[in-house]
Parts: sequence; structure tokens; C-alpha cells
Amino acid sequence: PSRSLANVYEIYRQTTKIATDDPRKLIHSFKVGLTLTLVSFFYYFRPLYNSFGVSAMWAVMTVVVVFEFSVGATLGKGLNRGLATLVAGALGVGANHLASLAGKTSEPILIGLFVFIQATASTFVRFVPTVKARYDYGMLIFILTFSLVSISGIRTDEILNLAQKRLSTILIGASTCVIISICVCPVWAGEDLHNLVGRNVEKLGSFLEDLTAENFRPPSEAAQTENGSSGVSVMSRLNSVVDSKSSEETLANFARWEPGHGRFMYRHPWKQYVKIGNLTRQCARRVEALLNAYLNSKTQAAEEIRGTIQEAFSGMISESGKALKEVASAMETMSRPPSPNPHLANLKIASKNLKSLLKSDFWEGYSNLSQVIRVASVASLLIDLVVCVEKVADGVNEL
Amino acid sequence: PSRSLANVYEIYRQTTKIATDDPRKLIHSFKVGLTLTLVSFFYYFRPLYNSFGVSAMWAVMTVVVVFEFSVGATLGKGLNRGLATLVAGALGVGANHLASLAGKTSEPILIGLFVFIQATASTFVRFVPTVKARYDYGMLIFILTFSLVSISGIRTDEILNLAQKRLSTILIGASTCVIISICVCPVWAGEDLHNLVGRNVEKLGSFLEDLTAENFRPPSEAAQTENGSSGVSVMSRLNSVVDSKSSEETLANFARWEPGHGRFMYRHPWKQYVKIGNLTRQCARRVEALLNAYLNSKTQAAEEIRGTIQEAFSGMISESGKALKEVASAMETMSRPPSPNPHLANLKIASKNLKSLLKSDFWEGYSNLSQVIRVASVASLLIDLVVCVEKVADGVNEL
Repeated sequence: PSRSLANVYEIYRQTTKIATDDPRKLIHSFKVGLTLTLVSFFYYFRPLYNSFGVSAMWAVMTVVVVFEFSVGATLGKGLNRGLATLVAGALGVGANHLASLAGKTSEPILIGLFVFIQATASTFVRFVPTVKARYDYGMLIFILTFSLVSISGIRTDEILNLAQKRLSTILIGASTCVIISICVCPVWAGEDLHNLVGRNVEKLGSFLEDLTAENFRPPSEAAQTENGSSGVSVMSRLNSVVDSKSSEETLANFARWEPGHGRFMYRHPWKQYVKIGNLTRQCARRVEALLNAYLNSKTQAAEEIRGTIQEAFSGMISESGKALKEVASAMETMSRPPSPNPHLANLKIASKNLKSLLKSDFWEGYSNLSQVIRVASVASLLIDLVVCVEKVADGVNEL
Repeated sequence: PSRSLANVYEIYRQTTKIATDDPRKLIHSFKVGLTLTLVSFFYYFRPLYNSFGVSAMWAVMTVVVVFEFSVGATLGKGLNRGLATLVAGALGVGANHLASLAGKTSEPILIGLFVFIQATASTFVRFVPTVKARYDYGMLIFILTFSLVSISGIRTDEILNLAQKRLSTILIGASTCVIISICVCPVWAGEDLHNLVGRNVEKLGSFLEDLTAENFRPPSEAAQTENGSSGVSVMSRLNSVVDSKSSEETLANFARWEPGHGRFMYRHPWKQYVKIGNLTRQCARRVEALLNAYLNSKTQAAEEIRGTIQEAFSGMISESGKALKEVASAMETMSRPPSPNPHLANLKIASKNLKSLLKSDFWEGYSNLSQVIRVASVASLLIDLVVCVEKVADGVNEL
């Protein structure tokens, strides 16, 4: 019992954390509750709305299944459900009619065949990536509706009445969802995507700036030597950037369903955000490699080298950070970044200098070559990073 | 019209590719078709099974919604649906009864309140990650069933009859799904997870071996210089390893629903696979960094260096590859890897030697220090890689 109590407490702790981290999730829950209660009254007072009858159940089902966190997801599911019901219903009636022409004995066989072929084909089409990304739910409803209608055995003249009822209840459910979703504190997938991608660029930028704040040291290195675990948290700041790929793709898919909102037009280039996100992740991976190389060299780093090249390093890293932050703030305000971006220009020059320095023989004066080599390996990773930062900036320019 | 024709052709091309890549998807589609046809006949011949009546529709719905690609996902959804219907139905009856006690005027208000509170709370709980991973579908059905039952206004004595019907139809639908899913060419999520993780380790291993096959060169470097695009495909072999995180986590969640099968017991340590997968990805990222560093140094690499250190490098990389492949084949056969793993032991020695070489002054004889430095930076990345390979091996040992 004490273990299950601990589990309950754990769930309680997690829920309060979710509510404080993102209050929109709490608001979303209230929106669902509100919509469901509204639609339920259609069903409860069915003497008042007698024409709907039992079909009103479909309105409740539609609300529960269609109402998603973002407007785009809700719209997408609603449209998928409505269209799939319409098309599958029509085809189902056709199949039913066709089978009934064949005579009493072969009718069930024909219907069984239709259902089998349709379910097999539709299930298979759901594996196609482009279909899966946008129409998966529609295909599900298509299979469901086609099967139900074609095996219902209802006469064709009756079915029009039923279809009209069914469709209007789904319409009521779905449109209530969409209206509440848009009108009460809307959560736009497009805006979320914009913020997520922008925030990742910004995170990476400030990570790089923090890195140089204490003479090219990862921010919590001091703490790390004390308890040994903070090194993980430094990396976890990067990991949150690296791991956001799938959520970015999902958001981009949802955003494509959304109408214009706020600063975004309909048909905003959402796919470009996915591209920028990928470039940002590439950048983050290079920073990770850089940090690993640096942490390894740390033990052997000496005062001697700090003087000459350390400054150039922290300068480049901080310029990279600034350049990324500038790109992020240009994204934020949706203005064109100042072109040519001064930090980027600085970076290009610094990168060129570093390259020629590596080719020159600046190190001949040093006694401990092992140190020089460590530092030089960091330098070449740094040059890679700069190339990547430039790519991110180009990607944002294309927005 | 020609554009939509191109779209249709594109979908056709993709479907045939899916069928040849993974025939199990085609088989799965046939399984769904078969199950749906079987269950439909319950509904079609309803004079025969008169006790089910309209509720039989729920059997068809259950099949369409519950039948998933893997056994684990199907079982998980089926159990979620069954349990949620049971619990929510009971609570809904309770809520309905409670509201009816309050009198005619306050009844709808109370019911509305119950629905609102329940929908809000359940929707919010769905955001908790642990709930989302395993019980998301159950929560959905819980909201749906509770709302439908509590607003149905059916008298309590009638409802037991209805509930029994509804539950038995869901049971028929879900158990048909599970039986067909397990008996006809079953797709086990656990086995898929095992293979995916093992294959990624193996991929990384053979990637490293290929790398050394032509004197520490990425495999298609020759082709790359010809058309310039193959460099992408080299990296994409690594990317398929890096990007499998979310599918591994999904599979691990499904696998936990599955009973013992083949070589796996119930409660196989599926989470350990996710851990190994993460370590493999870390390895792959280090290989990427290594490859970038090497490709950059390539232009400046000279004959001079090839002699001394190149051999040590390709030796280490090929040993890493072999060690990983041995780990992968131990996973494949589910035997304990030979301990101590000879390749790992070699790697440890080589890594130690390389470290002391970096500290010594082996390079003093070389005229072009720039090359030496490039090579040394590759060397330190290589030492990192070895540490990571050891971690993967340890992870597999813990299975």
C-alpha cells in the first residue's frame, strides 16, 4: 500500500509540475470539459432536439476524440473525420446497393469481400509516410464508416436520412471543438513551432555565451568538480536541443492545417522551420564534440597557452553565441536580420585567421607540444562550428 | 490533372516500396481485413445473434481502433479499452444515480458538473508523461464512456443489461484482434526492439570496419569525389542510427504489454534496451565528429604520417568495429559475450598506448606540424570513441 501511495503522490507531483510549467495545458483541460458539457446537453435534452436522437452520441464521441491540444491538430482531426465519414458513407451505400443487386445468397459474400478488400487496402495505405503524417485518422474513420454502413443492411432510401443526421451531429461536435479551440485561449501549433525552433537557436547561443563567461569553461565546471554530477546537466541543456526533432516535425504537420493567425499567414513556410531545426541540431552536436574535446584537454591545459590562443577561442565562441542569439531575436521579432550580420562577419574573419594560424608555425615556441595539439584539435572543431552557425543564419534568412 | 496523376503514381511507388521493404506490413493489412470481415458477420447476421443487436457495432469499432501493427500495441489498446469501459461505466452509473437523487431540477446541473469535472481532470492527467506513454488510450475511452453513460439517463436496472452487452461486444472485438494478432504471423514489439537495437550496434560496427577497409577512408569517398553527393549517404547511414530514439522508446512501451514469446520472457528488461540504444547513439555521434575531423584533415594529410600513426588509427577503428559487431552478435544469439572480449581488451591497450604517444614527443621528427595536429585531434576523438564502445558493451552485458 505504501508503494501505491508513493505512486499516487508521484503522479500528483508530476501534475502540479505540468500545470506550473505550462498553464496552457490546464486551460486546455478546462476547454475540453466545457466543450464536452456543452455538447452533452444536446444529448441530454434530446426531447428538445428530437431530430438528432441517438445519433447525438456521435457528437459526444467526436468531441472526445477530435479535441486536441493545438488548433492545427483539432482542425486536422475534425476535417479528417468529417471528410472520411462523407466519402466512406457514400462508398458504403454504393457497396451495399451493389451487393443487394446480386441476390439473397451472394449478398453477404459480396459484402464480406468488399469489407475485406477495403480494410486491407486502407490499412496498407496508412503505412505510407505522407499519408500517415496527415491523414492517418481519416483513414481510420474511413475503414470504420465504410464497414458500418456497408454491413448495416439499411435500405438506400432510409440511409440518406440517417447519413444527414450522422453528418450533422459530427459537424456540431467538430465545429464546437474548433470554435472553442480557436476562441478560448487558442494554442497555435505554428506559433509553438516558431517559438520552439527560435528558443533552440537562442538556447544554443546563450549556452555558447555562458561557456565563455568564465574563460572558455562550461558554466558549472566549478560545481562539477565538487559533486561530479553537474557535468550531466550541462550536456542535458544541449540534449533538449538535440532531442526535439520529432516534436518539431509533428508541430509542422499540425501547423499546416491552421488558418492565418497573429503574425503568421496561411501557408507560412513551416517546412523551413524543420530545416532550421535540423541545422540547429547539427550545430548542437558540434558543440557537444567541441566540449568533449575541451573537457579532455582541460587536465593538460596550461597557463602558457591561455595567453595566446585562448582569447581567440573564447572570442569566436562568444561571437558564435552572439550571432545565434541575434538570429534568434530576428526570428522572434520576425524582422529580417541585419544584413550583413556584424557577428557573422566577425566570425568569418576570425575563422579565416584561425585557419591560417593552424597552417603557420605559431607553436614552435612552445615546449609542451601535447598541449598545443589538444588546443589545435579544439580549434578545428571550432571552425566546423562556425560553418554550421552560418548555415543556421542562412536558413533563417530564407524564412 | 497531370500533377494529381503524378501524386497518385508517387503513392503507388511508395506503397510497393513499403511492401517489398517489410512484407509484414502487407500481412498486417490482410490480418486487419480478415478480422474485420469475421467480426462484421456477427453484425450482419444479427438475427442469429440477436442478443447483441446494435451493440455489435461496438465490436466493429473495437476492431478498427484496437488492431495495431505489433502484438504489444494491440494488447495494450485492448486492455486499455476494456478496463476503461468497465471502470468508467461503473462510475457513470454512480454519477447518474447520485444526480437522480437530487431531484428533477438540479439533476441536469449535477450531471453537467460531473461531466465537466471528470473531462477536465482526465484530460489533464493525460499530460502526465507516464500516463501518456501507457494509458493514453484508456483515458480517452474513460472520458468517452463516462460521459455517454452518465448523460444517457437510463434507469439503473436497465443499465446492467446494456453494460453486459456492451462489454461482451468489446470483449469479442478485442479478443478476436488479439487472437489473430498472436496466431497469424505475429509481430512482436519486443523482438523488433531487440533487432532494432542490435542492428544499430551492428550497423555502427560495420560502418567502422568499412571505414578502415580502404586505409581509414569513408567507404564511398572515391564515389563522392566523382559526383559529390555520396558523402551525404555516408552520413545518412549514421543518421539512421542517431534518429531511432523515439521509435525505440515506443517499441519498449509496447513490449511491456507482451507476454513471453520466443526467446523473451515476460518482464524482459526492455528498458535496458533503451539505455543501450542511447549509448549507441552517443557512439554514433562521436563517430560523426571523428569523421568530420578526419574529412577536414584529409586535404592536408600527407604520405609521411600514413606510415607511423595511420596504422594505429585504422587498427583501433577496426577493433572498435569488431568489438561492436561481437557485441551485436552476442545480442543476436542472446548468449553472454565472451568475457573478457578480446577486441575490447585490445582496444584498451591501444587506447592507453595512443594516450602515452600523445604525451610523448613522437612528432618532433616531422616537419609539417599542421598535419601532426590534425592527426592528433583525430586521435583524441578516437580515444573518446573507445570509451563509448566500452559503455555499450557493458550495457549489453547487463541484459
